[in-house]
Amino acid sequence: MGDDCAILRPDAGLELAVTTDMLVEGRHFSPGAEPRALGHKALAVNLSDLAALGAAPRWALLALGLPAADERWLEGFSAGFFALAERYGVELVGGDTTRSSVLTLTVVAMGEVPASVALYRSAARPGDDVWVSGELGGAALALQRPDIAAVQKRLHEPEPRIELGERLRGLARAAIDLSDGLAGDLGHVAARSQVAVVLAYERIPRAAAFKTVGDAQLERRCVLSGGDDYELAFTAAPERRAELEALSRELGLPLARIGAIEAGAPGVTVRDARGEVVAHEGGFDHFREPR
Amino acid sequence: MGDDCAILRPDAGLELAVTTDMLVEGRHFSPGAEPRALGHKALAVNLSDLAALGAAPRWALLALGLPAADERWLEGFSAGFFALAERYGVELVGGDTTRSSVLTLTVVAMGEVPASVALYRSAARPGDDVWVSGELGGAALALQRPDIAAVQKRLHEPEPRIELGERLRGLARAAIDLSDGLAGDLGHVAARSQVAVVLAYERIPRAAAFKTVGDAQLERRCVLSGGDDYELAFTAAPERRAELEALSRELGLPLARIGAIEAGAPGVTVRDARGEVVAHEGGFDHFREPR
Repeated sequence: MGDDCAILRPDAGLELAVTTDMLVEGRHFSPGAEPRALGHKALAVNLSDLAALGAAPRWALLALGLPAADERWLEGFSAGFFALAERYGVELVGGDTTRSSVLTLTVVAMGEVPASVALYRSAARPGDDVWVSGELGGAALALQRPDIAAVQKRLHEPEPRIELGERLRGLARAAIDLSDGLAGDLGHVAARSQVAVVLAYERIPRAAAFKTVGDAQLERRCVLSGGDDYELAFTAAPERRAELEALSRELGLPLARIGAIEAGAPGVTVRDARGEVVAHEGGFDHFREPR
Repeated sequence: MGDDCAILRPDAGLELAVTTDMLVEGRHFSPGAEPRALGHKALAVNLSDLAALGAAPRWALLALGLPAADERWLEGFSAGFFALAERYGVELVGGDTTRSSVLTLTVVAMGEVPASVALYRSAARPGDDVWVSGELGGAALALQRPDIAAVQKRLHEPEPRIELGERLRGLARAAIDLSDGLAGDLGHVAARSQVAVVLAYERIPRAAAFKTVGDAQLERRCVLSGGDDYELAFTAAPERRAELEALSRELGLPLARIGAIEAGAPGVTVRDARGEVVAHEGGFDHFREPR
């Protein structure tokens, strides 16, 4: 703009959804991380928050703290950021760049959602089905096993489920994006909705690579408590199953029914095929170092 | 909110102004800086950007990168941040906190302005008067001379000129907040409006402390090129002088007419009482290390 502020003109009758996430070198990514993937991921994790709300992304701000003015790094970062921004019609409307001894990336994403159709964590009701998109555990597996090439993209270039989020308006009740891990994130839905979440472990879709890895404990940790998958978990009334299956086919994105919402003390219980409780460590915070 | 996004409901017919500024320890403030003042300043510099546009502040986001979870520091920072936020009715609607080896503070401020009355840097016209609020140079002097108590508050707890900005709607043409220094910031107005800015050095109001310091060269550098004053500089048609003088009395805030806009090559020329050109180094970038 040339001015320090951007002027946005939200469409009449729409609400504005705003979110921010900060990525710091050494905590959220390794020193030397590929800049193009970082540019993608810094925006993707924010768009994922909008997707969970059912908002259509429109604008972004970017605040960069850079140890040095490295043209090549900036080119790569920009290429990753703008490729994703363009794909979803997101306009970069402002930002700030400053010198910092540690690389920090703060993105703000703004989107629009028709008044009163946003998907909230607090909207789950007893009797709802619990669904999840895509497959889980790949990002956490990639972190543990950098040698497994097939899952690296899940960690470094996650795909925000923007179209799904928008299509879930009026179809799903509660929704959340999986940044901290399935059990931990559904724990937020349970707490906010004051309901119990009961999941069937075998029904949770997971990265194909786990078959060849053959480590049941690692698989369980990654699938239930691994973060960074950025799929959407959501609840919907059982009457909406056919519509959700049709939507899955239309988007070419697997949607799996993995459990149910029950009345009861807020929490997440996972059971195996024999009905036994599968232990889980909650979310990302307990799996890795806190961030 | 409990959800990762905040939902904002801008009033109908208003445009949304958004700005972000990032402060990094060691660049924008010293290690060990007083946390309450930092909380104030991190928000103030963003509100100042809104003021320059004539926007009424409404919402803020805060992304903190913290070396350690220091309760006392957070309390002080929050006290400073929220005292200013409450004064202007700004609601903190979201944010992110993460561990970082260097303290970084990124604030996003959002405000509203009636459609098409925002003050832009590009709106200055030949014949306009150039005005400035308050007094200049105090923040830069405080940085050079930590021993002068009278000006320290100008540097550490600047006052965003929110009421002035709102009242300048429809009264001023171009406006800018003085973050990088008078000459440098008016240089942006000159470039964006494609006009020449001519200032009368003696008419520029300045901190009273310069009288006792008695260093004409330091005074000139601080007044013309020192940053961080966060006063507003603006242009207005000469027919609006009486209204602006009345506004100054009403707000209890000095407004000084310090020059004029002329047709000509974009740039800022400062002349002394004898008509001689006063050399200036542009803005903040040339005065201190680039940031």
